[in-house]
Amino acid sequence: METSLYKEAGVDIDAATDAVDRIKPAVRSTYGPEVLADVGSFGGLFALQNLPGQPVLVASTDSVGTKAELGARLGRWSSLGHDIVNHCVNDILVQNARPLFFLDYLATSKVSPAAIEEIVVGIAEACRFAGCALLGGEIAEMPGVYTDGAYDIVGSIVGLVDRTTLLPHPEQMQEGDLLFGMPSSGPHTNGYTLIRKALAGKDLEQPLHDGGPTIADAVLAPHRCYVPEIDRIQAAGIGLKGMAHITGGGLLDNTPRVLPDQLAAEFVIESERIPVLFQRLVQWSGMQGLEPFRVLNMGVGMVLIVDPADASTLQTAAPEAFPLGKLVARDGDPVRIRQI
Amino acid sequence: METSLYKEAGVDIDAATDAVDRIKPAVRSTYGPEVLADVGSFGGLFALQNLPGQPVLVASTDSVGTKAELGARLGRWSSLGHDIVNHCVNDILVQNARPLFFLDYLATSKVSPAAIEEIVVGIAEACRFAGCALLGGEIAEMPGVYTDGAYDIVGSIVGLVDRTTLLPHPEQMQEGDLLFGMPSSGPHTNGYTLIRKALAGKDLEQPLHDGGPTIADAVLAPHRCYVPEIDRIQAAGIGLKGMAHITGGGLLDNTPRVLPDQLAAEFVIESERIPVLFQRLVQWSGMQGLEPFRVLNMGVGMVLIVDPADASTLQTAAPEAFPLGKLVARDGDPVRIRQI
Repeated sequence: METSLYKEAGVDIDAATDAVDRIKPAVRSTYGPEVLADVGSFGGLFALQNLPGQPVLVASTDSVGTKAELGARLGRWSSLGHDIVNHCVNDILVQNARPLFFLDYLATSKVSPAAIEEIVVGIAEACRFAGCALLGGEIAEMPGVYTDGAYDIVGSIVGLVDRTTLLPHPEQMQEGDLLFGMPSSGPHTNGYTLIRKALAGKDLEQPLHDGGPTIADAVLAPHRCYVPEIDRIQAAGIGLKGMAHITGGGLLDNTPRVLPDQLAAEFVIESERIPVLFQRLVQWSGMQGLEPFRVLNMGVGMVLIVDPADASTLQTAAPEAFPLGKLVARDGDPVRIRQI
Repeated sequence: METSLYKEAGVDIDAATDAVDRIKPAVRSTYGPEVLADVGSFGGLFALQNLPGQPVLVASTDSVGTKAELGARLGRWSSLGHDIVNHCVNDILVQNARPLFFLDYLATSKVSPAAIEEIVVGIAEACRFAGCALLGGEIAEMPGVYTDGAYDIVGSIVGLVDRTTLLPHPEQMQEGDLLFGMPSSGPHTNGYTLIRKALAGKDLEQPLHDGGPTIADAVLAPHRCYVPEIDRIQAAGIGLKGMAHITGGGLLDNTPRVLPDQLAAEFVIESERIPVLFQRLVQWSGMQGLEPFRVLNMGVGMVLIVDPADASTLQTAAPEAFPLGKLVARDGDPVRIRQI
């Protein structure tokens, strides 16, 4: 399991990976016993050791990336606010934490108060939905740093979980455990460097398909928050063994973050279940082989790992969840994807 | 007292202030009873109400701003890491919180692993010094968003304080209370849009004055952390009534954030105490009147407010602290500055 709490984003993955490798010793040099570094890597874990019980703070920081460029170009500010909150909420939800508070950092070349307002109204809506406070933030105007009209929309979230209920449980996973997918609402906040290229020259106000949403609506659909669904699943008594939030790196890179070394995820993807937008993006971009499953979420926003005995209860509690495959003995790659 | 937890930075203050006014209702709509919004505004306060005792989480997010441009140009990466941590640490220290953990967000047009490594090594050094964990972070490469070679260095900090020891105590402040300054190490992380203009065309490797540091060393001196000094002052039994971290807005805008409505801060600034760098920056930039005390810290990194009876104990515990003036009845502006 990847133990670094550092994440990287961008187009030059090798340089970013190199950067992460270089900084690991420095980052680890700051850890005291209250940092639970090896439990999972979607959010940082900080145990409040001096307090009774076993409360653990889970924290994560992220950006909506270049989706902001597309949203800014089309004036869809509010949905960018939902994007950054829900990205962060889901990142700590997979460790079974519920959000306490969120902070945002909005930076641009030239502050437009109306745009900032719409973004923050969206952030606040998403915070209320997820049950967290928008505790603070910073608005920065830096004309020499940001290109004309560019925005960076960054969020930090802090949540709480009891140490006894932390996820994932790689030690409980075994061959035959089932993989379920929760549908994404669109590309969420990842793959937009490719998506923007794939959309170049297209009229985004045209429908994606007959009777469908416009291309703009489809690609800018806000990142979805999975708190209500996970609450319902747990209220039904299901002991989830692990969850993976499918962000940059797709099913291929995110699923292994919660698996034990001896198990692999075998996904069986029904081509007809892949939402039209993703089919089109693959076609327009010319991506080959499994590449789409690394760059895009391909319709899966979150992967849940459960005991087969829990499958029917899970589908009753969360009817949207769909079977995606199972855990198998690892023999090489930690993820296999079979498209049928 | 300003109750918004939102801060703004940048060159167009009116637009930023307008933006902050517009977002206040949305931000407040996310507050539950655990958000202690009116206590102070340097960091967000989140009470852990379900736990015994009165632990309060204090959170803040900020950026080093355009100091990053200057540091990047001169290849002084490590000091930028210290800057972002210490800026955040001091922001919550003035509420009497001590840091638990820090998260960073490093974004640029093109990731240089070596530069990222130096920045994060600096961040980790500053975290260890302040006693906090570097719990996570994100490295983002966005060529279309950031101008060539530009960096944004953003940090979020979460600290802890017991509600019974929260600062400031505006209700305890009275006429005659003394103002002390803690020396800054340089401009810290504010005023760099002006500083970069003031330095245009100058050879930064020249000494600032005979026998002094180079201009580059002086303007890039890392933002100083005041945790040890405040620890010593409190260990000496001094009940600080309030502290203001002097960041963007200078003495003029930051001091009022901790004062009650009926009192004003009367600063008496000895011209010869103003460090040479600030004298030169004022001269080179052509700033007039009190403007330097809004754009720059002018040598004061933190303002402490104490009872006159505590003055000699304070100066024994923190010999660097220097008298800056006193609280007087407010009659108009919340801050008066008299330069002698």
